[in-house]
Amino acid sequence: MESNPDFNLTCPIPIDNYPQVLLAHGGGGRLMNQLIEQMFRPAFGTSSDIPHDATTLTLTGKKIAMTTDSYVVNPLFFPGGDIGSMAIYGTVNDLAMAGARPLYLSVGFILEEGLPMTTLWQIIQRMQMAAKGADIQIVTGDTKVVDRGKGDGIFINTAGIGIIEHELRICPESVQPGDIILVSGDLGRHGIAIMAVREGLEFETTIESDSAPVADLVLELLNAGVEIHCLRDLTRGGLASALHEIATASNLQMEIDENQLPIREDVQGACEILGFDPIYVANEGRFVAFIPAKDVEKTCSILTAKNPQASVIGQVQDKAGGLVTMRSKIGSTRIVDLLSGEQLPRIC
Amino acid sequence: MESNPDFNLTCPIPIDNYPQVLLAHGGGGRLMNQLIEQMFRPAFGTSSDIPHDATTLTLTGKKIAMTTDSYVVNPLFFPGGDIGSMAIYGTVNDLAMAGARPLYLSVGFILEEGLPMTTLWQIIQRMQMAAKGADIQIVTGDTKVVDRGKGDGIFINTAGIGIIEHELRICPESVQPGDIILVSGDLGRHGIAIMAVREGLEFETTIESDSAPVADLVLELLNAGVEIHCLRDLTRGGLASALHEIATASNLQMEIDENQLPIREDVQGACEILGFDPIYVANEGRFVAFIPAKDVEKTCSILTAKNPQASVIGQVQDKAGGLVTMRSKIGSTRIVDLLSGEQLPRIC
Repeated sequence: MESNPDFNLTCPIPIDNYPQVLLAHGGGGRLMNQLIEQMFRPAFGTSSDIPHDATTLTLTGKKIAMTTDSYVVNPLFFPGGDIGSMAIYGTVNDLAMAGARPLYLSVGFILEEGLPMTTLWQIIQRMQMAAKGADIQIVTGDTKVVDRGKGDGIFINTAGIGIIEHELRICPESVQPGDIILVSGDLGRHGIAIMAVREGLEFETTIESDSAPVADLVLELLNAGVEIHCLRDLTRGGLASALHEIATASNLQMEIDENQLPIREDVQGACEILGFDPIYVANEGRFVAFIPAKDVEKTCSILTAKNPQASVIGQVQDKAGGLVTMRSKIGSTRIVDLLSGEQLPRIC
Repeated sequence: MESNPDFNLTCPIPIDNYPQVLLAHGGGGRLMNQLIEQMFRPAFGTSSDIPHDATTLTLTGKKIAMTTDSYVVNPLFFPGGDIGSMAIYGTVNDLAMAGARPLYLSVGFILEEGLPMTTLWQIIQRMQMAAKGADIQIVTGDTKVVDRGKGDGIFINTAGIGIIEHELRICPESVQPGDIILVSGDLGRHGIAIMAVREGLEFETTIESDSAPVADLVLELLNAGVEIHCLRDLTRGGLASALHEIATASNLQMEIDENQLPIREDVQGACEILGFDPIYVANEGRFVAFIPAKDVEKTCSILTAKNPQASVIGQVQDKAGGLVTMRSKIGSTRIVDLLSGEQLPRIC
């Protein structure tokens, strides 16, 4: 690969340790954080100081949210989803995590020469249905084609903008000691669904991805007057990575209870066979919410009406330090750390 | 590549002719148009009926523009530019083509495992400088890493939003018979610069890409009160494809004069050696403008102050039919048609 001798500024990532990009740099764990914090953020100086799914911006005096994600999932179709609908839902969900009402989406395709035209057409149709279902409008697009062997069928980027119609600051900085931590449904299905297809594993039942839009659910919480402090969707790196990032950004300790984690038996079983810890497994239609105790009952009733497995899983402690701990099923407590990368690359 | 048997709707692209995606489907010519018109537009039903670089939208009562592009140029660095600055300028320029003031940009990276960390760092720095120079803020981003051999070093997607602060409708529909057609500078350098590096060609002088932001220039025209009817940046497919699309969309005939085309001698010479027609060669910092005759003097003086080679090249005729014709240097007239693809893939 080409380089250019004009630039002599020292690379901020120690290249003795990491001379090349690794799969783990895209895995949602420690190496990706390093890339973002040491390279992207200093260079681009994003407007938001706190990492978050979508950025909140001002446009003609109004608050909007903007976000982007590329989708490189392998395989392209899997039980419960496909790259096309994921590319819609993932970006819609990132907007929702800022409490925004999703409005407009851009779509950029990078196609590999040789992609069957019917595969492309199937993906387009899935995207069309997903956009309709998630009530977002695809307004602009771009298509590039790369030579055979220089891509992998299809990569999709979507960027979205939404409008913020409330006065809350939904971000890690707003998290308070005593806040209750909830998840919006059962955990770990997306990662296991992908893994099962990729490795040709068969379980007693087909485990389907949880891939789904969550914006309506968030808007319902807001309409009900729930004072949401923070939201985060549980994609790469799963629940553990999301909690870890929010704990670090808010500098507060949080404790979760393994007994309260909604994990289906089949998913738990698959995780045990595969050696995965379900709190690190990716989801594509689940989020964690930080809510003041006064609003927990209201929140639970809205979340469980949509998904009976939504559950309170822990609480923010009145201690600084950004540690995440988990009370295990046998009563001991362990520290929940970041993984270096993702257990399973190309999950989204 | 996987397919899914659930979908049986007939693919709108005749798969007997095109069973697979070809490089030409990304080349800015006839096959790309077919893909957009027969597959993407019917499925996504974009808000704008007329193809254009950026879409005009309403957000809280204000007009904004939104656009996206992915960048897959090969090589990553070339005389006069690199993939990073191009990813900024290209999207800024698409916003400018709607007469928008560029505000915010999202960036999505798709990295191939094994990309040298220093290459990434050089590209990031180029993007940082380009964003500063083009006065646009990078506000959100995403990074994915794909396995070695499933990408090509780095692909970059950017999506941008800008604000429209004037009452003009800058689009092909606004083009009128009698409109003067101008280009903002000399043509064909980007394509030739890329080709020279890729094929290891050496000319007497190094031909540098024209890659540059043009938003300031467009805003200057607007501030001067120029009644711009239509703008289009001259990327994939070059001047010929841009004129062809606008002629088709406006259903008006247009005539250009080969003698008026600002093409540098070295570029003309390289085109002759390579067998390229310069009106099809890609640019990355040039646009075509459709301006009523009353404003041509003002427009020329602003454009030539920036680039002395900016020039009037033709006029819109009072004839329906969407034909583009060119008076050649020897006085004959020929029809300017779309190519099937691009003479040179992966130009941007």
